Amino acid sequence: MKLLRVDMTTLQTRWEIVPEIYQQFGGRALIARLLLEEIPAACDALGPHNKLIVAPGLLGGAGVTTAGRLSVGGKSPLTGGVKEANAGGIGGDTLGKMGIKAIVVEGQPEQGQFHLLHIQGDAAELLPAEDVRGLGTYATSEKLQERYGADAMVISIGQAGEFLMRGAGIAVTGEREQRSNHAARGGLGAVMGSKGLKAVVIEKPVGKSVSFADVELFRNASRAFAQKLIADPKLGAQGGQHLYGTSSIVGAVNEMGSLPTRNFSSGSFEQAATLRGEHLREAILAREGNIGTRCMPGCVIACRNQYVDESGMPIVGTLQYETIGLVGSNLGLGNLDDVARLNFMCNDFGLDTIETGAALGVAIEAGLAEFGNVESIIALLNQVSEGTILGRMLGNGVVTTGQVMGIRRVPAALGQAMPAYDPRSLKGNGVTYATSPQGADHTAGNAFGARNEVNPLGIQGQKELSLKLQIIAAMLDSTGLCLFARPPIIANPQLMVDMLNGIYGWGWTKDDYDRANRDVLRTELEFNRRAGITKEDYRIPEYMREEPLAPHNAIFDVPDSELDSVFDTL
Amino acid sequence: MKLLRVDMTTLQTRWEIVPEIYQQFGGRALIARLLLEEIPAACDALGPHNKLIVAPGLLGGAGVTTAGRLSVGGKSPLTGGVKEANAGGIGGDTLGKMGIKAIVVEGQPEQGQFHLLHIQGDAAELLPAEDVRGLGTYATSEKLQERYGADAMVISIGQAGEFLMRGAGIAVTGEREQRSNHAARGGLGAVMGSKGLKAVVIEKPVGKSVSFADVELFRNASRAFAQKLIADPKLGAQGGQHLYGTSSIVGAVNEMGSLPTRNFSSGSFEQAATLRGEHLREAILAREGNIGTRCMPGCVIACRNQYVDESGMPIVGTLQYETIGLVGSNLGLGNLDDVARLNFMCNDFGLDTIETGAALGVAIEAGLAEFGNVESIIALLNQVSEGTILGRMLGNGVVTTGQVMGIRRVPAALGQAMPAYDPRSLKGNGVTYATSPQGADHTAGNAFGARNEVNPLGIQGQKELSLKLQIIAAMLDSTGLCLFARPPIIANPQLMVDMLNGIYGWGWTKDDYDRANRDVLRTELEFNRRAGITKEDYRIPEYMREEPLAPHNAIFDVPDSELDSVFDTL
Repeated sequence: MKLLRVDMTTLQTRWEIVPEIYQQFGGRALIARLLLEEIPAACDALGPHNKLIVAPGLLGGAGVTTAGRLSVGGKSPLTGGVKEANAGGIGGDTLGKMGIKAIVVEGQPEQGQFHLLHIQGDAAELLPAEDVRGLGTYATSEKLQERYGADAMVISIGQAGEFLMRGAGIAVTGEREQRSNHAARGGLGAVMGSKGLKAVVIEKPVGKSVSFADVELFRNASRAFAQKLIADPKLGAQGGQHLYGTSSIVGAVNEMGSLPTRNFSSGSFEQAATLRGEHLREAILAREGNIGTRCMPGCVIACRNQYVDESGMPIVGTLQYETIGLVGSNLGLGNLDDVARLNFMCNDFGLDTIETGAALGVAIEAGLAEFGNVESIIALLNQVSEGTILGRMLGNGVVTTGQVMGIRRVPAALGQAMPAYDPRSLKGNGVTYATSPQGADHTAGNAFGARNEVNPLGIQGQKELSLKLQIIAAMLDSTGLCLFARPPIIANPQLMVDMLNGIYGWGWTKDDYDRANRDVLRTELEFNRRAGITKEDYRIPEYMREEPLAPHNAIFDVPDSELDSVFDTL
Repeated sequence: MKLLRVDMTTLQTRWEIVPEIYQQFGGRALIARLLLEEIPAACDALGPHNKLIVAPGLLGGAGVTTAGRLSVGGKSPLTGGVKEANAGGIGGDTLGKMGIKAIVVEGQPEQGQFHLLHIQGDAAELLPAEDVRGLGTYATSEKLQERYGADAMVISIGQAGEFLMRGAGIAVTGEREQRSNHAARGGLGAVMGSKGLKAVVIEKPVGKSVSFADVELFRNASRAFAQKLIADPKLGAQGGQHLYGTSSIVGAVNEMGSLPTRNFSSGSFEQAATLRGEHLREAILAREGNIGTRCMPGCVIACRNQYVDESGMPIVGTLQYETIGLVGSNLGLGNLDDVARLNFMCNDFGLDTIETGAALGVAIEAGLAEFGNVESIIALLNQVSEGTILGRMLGNGVVTTGQVMGIRRVPAALGQAMPAYDPRSLKGNGVTYATSPQGADHTAGNAFGARNEVNPLGIQGQKELSLKLQIIAAMLDSTGLCLFARPPIIANPQLMVDMLNGIYGWGWTKDDYDRANRDVLRTELEFNRRAGITKEDYRIPEYMREEPLAPHNAIFDVPDSELDSVFDTL
């Protein structure tokens, strides 16, 4: 396998055999290791010393179902620490098949220069990108696919990334006309923008495939894995995740009092019924939109939807739970049409919906728009693409918005906006937000699924639960597996060990595998330590530790001593 | 002596005998100690747990010349660490005479409530402040002096503090109509605003004076001190500091290539001649303005000026070096009339001129105005008082402005804007900026005066020089002495020991005194450590370590190892 080094200072590219020290890593694990080895942890995240890394997981390209996520990483301009975000689409599959372990974008061109990286087989070159500059992610990929063919994969930033907004993400195209998979979090779109890289275009590889050390071992394990997913009552054809996608949990989170409502001022939203997955499904079917499609080739869960308007015209796909929470209930909006419009705008500008929804919530608390009034909110959000001061403030995320507007109630940890679980009434997620090296991030260890095992309102057991989930999340993000696909691997880790050994011939034991997953967190924590991040930087905001949240009057009361000892047994 | 506790949650005030643990502290030392003892270091600086402390130095009220500075402190919303800023005027003298060791403002009222604290003798009460709300600091003190008498001292915030802008300072009135002494730095005006405290009015104490443990000892030392100042060739009646004030150094700093010019992109300004102290003096005298007046009662240096326009109408007083550097050369302005207008606006809105000048420099680099075009700059600055998004961004200081606008060249350390000495060509100041618990602050240890002893462009000796200066600065800020008055005390510390023993009867030796000064820094560093600040947070920005500064092509190349060991011998 090989690495592609892209030097934005000299505008040269160079293929490199994967160095020994990186061979056993993929996705998030590779990002953490490479950042620790190659960049000064305290560097300016938007300066020349940061690196933007695009990497498939270890299973990328091997044809494992639900395992084609593409990781993007670098030092986060939002958290100041390590960052990995991943997206569906065809990126993980494409890079994996091409034997590309990572694209590493380095250096910095003169200010204001934008390029696109074009890869076709072994050829990789930087080309001027003036013709797509200033365009949103939809128009960018459309224009580039017109030029390079509909099969070409496009990774791009929108206006938000060009403007170096720290709420900017990176869009990755998928099969057919899918344009809205996002490695959204942590401001990686701004890192890409700071490199002057508007887009990466990878032409469809011809006749490329992964080579296997033991194809039988691999095939047996990957088949067993797919069958387990298909047979899982939650994930299979009759399962809620297939039928309703991630939005299947809206009702349950609202009932547990953890649904962010009007800038996290309540955990319960009176209009939650019209935001529920069941409602979403009915609306889409009634309008003849698509539901139960997939974001990655070969996915057997197929939780994707395409939300359409009343005339059946697509608005956005896939409309997901976190977006519904952050730009729906958090903004007082109970109408999915409104949520879909805001989702489309965020996707197009290249903004993280979580960060931006949280920033809009704070902006509304500051009086800049009205909760529940979608037109007032659209007027705000539109300013992001225009690059006005207001737009730049919002695009820089919730902490910046709170600082500029003088608002104290800012739902963030380590500088990053919280996803759609208020930590006061789902304390396991609070522990993850307050300890994960990734900052407030539900995909780093989501305790929602364990709500029947550990009382979400209690302190007992949260620490242990969070650590367990964080280790699993590190595994998922390093192999390219979707969060939804974890149950069979948790039940039988040997499946993953066999798939990895089948591809790479490492002869790993379950212990080796467990150690590798834990090492991801250790590496990330070490990077953050070197970056100057301390336990005080990770904390849940003061107001959430003191102001009770309706309906349970819950505060986040997990003691600091518990938080500080989460990784004692790592 | 006594403390006044002001509880903004209950709107009650309470006098308290000074607790034993605070008795040997004043000004900055008291602030550091009280913050460490009484507030959680990691608390929200604009939340209810922070405290705003107003305290005279140990010499306050005793009638020592040049020793009446008033310290204000709290956790800084700008740096996240300990903060003390001090101002001239009659505050230190008034509180000292009244036997008030500190006013400690605690808690937080409901959002949007503003009060004023009225103190007359032993009576202290909180009153509604709706009639001065929204006013600048000039109009606020004018209105309150109309009500309470021209002799009443007023401490107030402007619009910037009300809006919780982290570049907001606190204004303190002086003798007669002086309204423009500022405890400017670190966003303490926002802390006062977060307490809902618009102003403090202290009526002139009648027949109050400090009591002395050994009046002879005190009198001999304080007379000797005053005589030394008068006899000092730099400070006396023919000295540059009396004749030209702090602006006496404009020419020298420009010649050494350290004068911030156009957002710190050069250390040399082609129009420096018209910003020099000599020019300032001529202009003021030609227009029949005042020069050589004082900011504190009894000051024998008298470096204050009142800058007037062509018709002799006062614009602002006193026009000082840091302001000339930050809102003059740093904005490409070589006309003192322009600088004075911007200075007045900052004072009126209640903004730190250093933080705001730096923010304006970054805003101009981002294209929001033009270097050298004062009208374009005034148009920006005016937005602060209007509370527009742009105004709020600028008012929140240079780091926020850089983040929102996507500008990397942000001259700040520990979140606070650098004063008017580029650290690349005055490396001793760079060491202070990068190690002082106060963040980038020239008054925390200014190496300019030692430029003939330690080569400003070299690395050798900077570490030791900075530590020495930081200890002296801690002494000055804790006793209420002006920076200008330090030479006689440095030459003969026994003078200060005798003055303190004369007042308090502590029987201190020079060792006790030295230990007390060092302890200020130790206490502050410990507070910052508990607040989660690490050595990485203190660093000089990356671009200043890599991009050479004209005319010497200097970079800030003092190694991290030197910075990290500054306090090894504390």
